[in-house]
Amino acid sequence: MSVDPPPDLILDRLQSLGITLPPAPQPVAAYVPAVRSGSFLFVSGQIPFRDGELLARGPVPSEVDVDRATAAARQCALNGIAVAAAALEGRLDRVLRVIRVGVFVACDPGFEQQPQVANGASELLQQVFGEKGRHARAAVGAPSLPRGATVEVELLLEVE
Amino acid sequence: MSVDPPPDLILDRLQSLGITLPPAPQPVAAYVPAVRSGSFLFVSGQIPFRDGELLARGPVPSEVDVDRATAAARQCALNGIAVAAAALEGRLDRVLRVIRVGVFVACDPGFEQQPQVANGASELLQQVFGEKGRHARAAVGAPSLPRGATVEVELLLEVE
Amino acid sequence: MSVDPPPDLILDRLQSLGITLPPAPQPVAAYVPAVRSGSFLFVSGQIPFRDGELLARGPVPSEVDVDRATAAARQCALNGIAVAAAALEGRLDRVLRVIRVGVFVACDPGFEQQPQVANGASELLQQVFGEKGRHARAAVGAPSLPRGATVEVELLLEVE
Repeated sequence: MSVDPPPDLILDRLQSLGITLPPAPQPVAAYVPAVRSGSFLFVSGQIPFRDGELLARGPVPSEVDVDRATAAARQCALNGIAVAAAALEGRLDRVLRVIRVGVFVACDPGFEQQPQVANGASELLQQVFGEKGRHARAAVGAPSLPRGATVEVELLLEVE
Repeated sequence: MSVDPPPDLILDRLQSLGITLPPAPQPVAAYVPAVRSGSFLFVSGQIPFRDGELLARGPVPSEVDVDRATAAARQCALNGIAVAAAALEGRLDRVLRVIRVGVFVACDPGFEQQPQVANGASELLQQVFGEKGRHARAAVGAPSLPRGATVEVELLLEVE
Repeated sequence: MSVDPPPDLILDRLQSLGITLPPAPQPVAAYVPAVRSGSFLFVSGQIPFRDGELLARGPVPSEVDVDRATAAARQCALNGIAVAAAALEGRLDRVLRVIRVGVFVACDPGFEQQPQVANGASELLQQVFGEKGRHARAAVGAPSLPRGATVEVELLLEVE
């Protein structure tokens, strides 16, 4: 007798939002995608890869506008969710809380809208995880990021 | 019969230092001021708002000098303490330890005094929390920060 | 009757790698080298001091090339291990896992090889700690860092 896996509320929500979880990105260097310690899952910094290409490259606003950077931040968060799903054997309902989100925005001096860009990540996390997706955050600028990415996002999750 | 609340040693110390705790700043975007997980309290990145205005805007040293940036870092830490107080129902004596402080300083290339600026935050935390205020720290530069702030400070506290 | 201390596998490995652990660097300002909370050891951001001098100063690539920056990142990690050893009474085999590594690379706008530089730290940690050295990571750029250092590395360890 086969047994259906229990439903995963978060995977259901992703589906209802029309969001397809990408394959978990592999690290671009000598580290691992995520490390669990106690009830914490630390997800490495994610850049906005989609289908093998970066969604945005270069600093805001001289090379990338705020809207595109915000979409890139959303993609970073989606990649982070994919990493978490892989670490949790596909069971995203084991995420009890998104604790902290770190957002780095490649930008020119004088750029002040890191919060707006970072909201691309924050709002996705709240759409997907609901109340559990409400997190502490630090959003800052950087002169440049790995592979020229416009945004890098790291996640800290509480998991069961 | 009314019952007085127990004294809070840290609030007493703030008073004896002549420091008035500001209202806890609200996040400037789609996140929350602090998240508790286990014995950890993660406080979101704080910028140097005081009475609704930023104490310092722009990079060090071209637009802001080190002294003013240091005062801004102190204000960031004070705002972080206010957030922690709100999360702990006003009981700052529930802070068992300041674990880690992250300090981002908006600066021009070549600026080397991030530690001096960050001391504005670190020294306040040690004044207020005493031995419990001694923390690990990372202080780094950034080309620019949210709303043009000169400094952003995030806190990780151990709480009961 | 004297009792030999038990062997420390990690100190043995350092010796077999020909690596001499430096004295634990003292903080350059008002904070402490490391804070323990529960099973976590937070090591403050380390800059590439070796024998009292910075191994690399200034941004990559205009003032420092990638190879030298990578060697500087390795030195930062080595200094972080020295701090951990001091915090753990010399018993590095009490490190159960390197959880997270944060790497800041002073760089010019347009620099994209932060991961390669950060690998100087990551690869050392894996050489020294083996499987336990595999960590989550965020590597980003900064316009400048404390004392003009080319790299700053902070560590989060799980310890017993």
